[in-house]
Amino acid sequence: MTSIPPSLSFDSRTEWLRGEGRASDVVMSSRIRLARNLAGCPFPHRGTRVHRQASLQLCKKAILAGNLSPRLIWVDLHDASPLERMLLVERHLISKHHSKSRPSAGPPAAGPDDPRGVAISLPDERVSIMVNEEDHLRIQVIRTGLALSECWKEIDEVDNRLEAALPYAYCPRFGYLTSCPTNVGTGLRMSVMLHLPGLRLTGDIERVKRAAGDMNLAVRGFYGEGSEAAGDFYQLSNQTTLGKSERQVLEELEAQIIPKVVEYERVARRTIATKRLAAVEDQVYRALGILTQARLISAEEAMQLLSHLRLGVVLGIIKQIDQSLVNHLMLLVQPAHLQRVLGREMDQDQRRIARGDLLRTKLAR
Amino acid sequence: MTSIPPSLSFDSRTEWLRGEGRASDVVMSSRIRLARNLAGCPFPHRGTRVHRQASLQLCKKAILAGNLSPRLIWVDLHDASPLERMLLVERHLISKHHSKSRPSAGPPAAGPDDPRGVAISLPDERVSIMVNEEDHLRIQVIRTGLALSECWKEIDEVDNRLEAALPYAYCPRFGYLTSCPTNVGTGLRMSVMLHLPGLRLTGDIERVKRAAGDMNLAVRGFYGEGSEAAGDFYQLSNQTTLGKSERQVLEELEAQIIPKVVEYERVARRTIATKRLAAVEDQVYRALGILTQARLISAEEAMQLLSHLRLGVVLGIIKQIDQSLVNHLMLLVQPAHLQRVLGREMDQDQRRIARGDLLRTKLAR
Repeated sequence: MTSIPPSLSFDSRTEWLRGEGRASDVVMSSRIRLARNLAGCPFPHRGTRVHRQASLQLCKKAILAGNLSPRLIWVDLHDASPLERMLLVERHLISKHHSKSRPSAGPPAAGPDDPRGVAISLPDERVSIMVNEEDHLRIQVIRTGLALSECWKEIDEVDNRLEAALPYAYCPRFGYLTSCPTNVGTGLRMSVMLHLPGLRLTGDIERVKRAAGDMNLAVRGFYGEGSEAAGDFYQLSNQTTLGKSERQVLEELEAQIIPKVVEYERVARRTIATKRLAAVEDQVYRALGILTQARLISAEEAMQLLSHLRLGVVLGIIKQIDQSLVNHLMLLVQPAHLQRVLGREMDQDQRRIARGDLLRTKLAR
Repeated sequence: MTSIPPSLSFDSRTEWLRGEGRASDVVMSSRIRLARNLAGCPFPHRGTRVHRQASLQLCKKAILAGNLSPRLIWVDLHDASPLERMLLVERHLISKHHSKSRPSAGPPAAGPDDPRGVAISLPDERVSIMVNEEDHLRIQVIRTGLALSECWKEIDEVDNRLEAALPYAYCPRFGYLTSCPTNVGTGLRMSVMLHLPGLRLTGDIERVKRAAGDMNLAVRGFYGEGSEAAGDFYQLSNQTTLGKSERQVLEELEAQIIPKVVEYERVARRTIATKRLAAVEDQVYRALGILTQARLISAEEAMQLLSHLRLGVVLGIIKQIDQSLVNHLMLLVQPAHLQRVLGREMDQDQRRIARGDLLRTKLAR
């Protein structure tokens, strides 16, 4: 069985949790992923188990031989426990879909032990490559702050090295071919995780979401597609993969759209800090009060309170806690992390108690 | 203008706030009041202003000359500021009705400066005597814990001394005559302030309230008639003033009914302490967290949280805070107290800030 190193649950060297980088008061992290497939091999959801075993072997070999990162570990997800898989989902290293394993439109042969895996760069967890998710390859680079250019530089390099070793399914007319037509072309998705408590407090968040939609951007929650905006975190990502080059998308997002949203959020924060400081301070300190005293707490509530706390840290209301700790706690309160950190399986009630204990310990002055 | 001594806002010698006495884990305080009127003088709501001036003078003189208590102060309520009057209401020394002054069915001459007053024993505030409220005299004794016998002994003595000096309106057939027929006879109301968070948590509170109703007892909130049960406090009082002697009412309440309710509440607390300890601890500690961190807080929320805190103190969950402090805070968070303690008038928003400041200061370890 694949062993996931303990560092993966609470290592402070995880790059995207650092709370640093450009515009890190608003942009928690930047992420780019590329969808790629092997030519001459049925795409995961169309192939048989044997096909997927073959694509897994091929990709795994190329990834591990590709010198893509100073240290890269490989996890065979079909051998990993549900808890280990959930841990990787919580860390944004694999998708929920990939953790559940069965390709959505897969033939009956596909099952929970369907051949698939992920490569992860350590200790920064900046690069991860899922194999046999919706596409044969899903390459991801994730970094702290607004850093799409840096992500692009890194992922482009990884992609080039893999392309040199693997026969990518590419069509001169459409570009890279993918399982889902929405990804055909560049196979590119660029996204940023934004913390927008100010815009929620001023009530402008819906306007910003509509504007993003008008610009053909998707707005999602902390855990991507289908997840709610937990704790005022919003993932903003491009939808277009045809007709626009990677450079164009990058420039549009990084130089134009994101800075504008960041500015909106900063203005909102300044507004509330001048006009409604008492209300914001109250929200921040109440969050601190509950986080440091509650004996039972759900992951959802903890996320929401940590979001308030994060705003307090960013606004300088709370000085004894840093943003990186708050970011890490957002992961540590998730079910799989909690169980991994405490080294035992727990049901929901036990987790609510353990989560309270953990938060009190970590936030104790 | 009558000056209310500063001790009245935050003196810790106030007897009923001590959190001591029999069954003080459940019974916050015991209170008896007697309604009396002067013969040969129209009752307050039927008389003119001149009549009320006369009854006020007569009663005031008898009270101050009666040697009723080692130290008794007199407050002319028609001269007191609205804030001072509200302060006395919050301390349960005068009724809301008495603070607002105009006899409910009074002739047009009656107004906010209608002649009326109150005598208060210091420093314990155990005895208070309202003059020209609904009746010419409303004598009250209030003590900590379950102490109706002690209250009765004291109030009976006060009543005897006043009766020796004043011509009470008394009719051999009906007993003491009062403005409202529901008080005719003994003119007696005995009540206890109960803290019943356990019964609320087990869901049995409605059953107890119905049972009390069936026994002809009234169930009211922290501020008596018409007030909601703030913070799980319930005032239980007799309704019968005809056909039952004072002794009978006293014995029924103190020896039978109240001990039963106290036992119900204790059983409920034991039940939750064994079966739902984590949930109770969570509620208690969350209350502590918010009370020690909130920057804006309403009186209602503060009362509710202090009620949770009180349960924590009584159950031994919270050890660094005593019941007397919690009881005092319940008064100090009230609007008039807050303004008196801080020495300035404040609007609602300012009070919410000041209340948070005060709670944090008083609860700081």
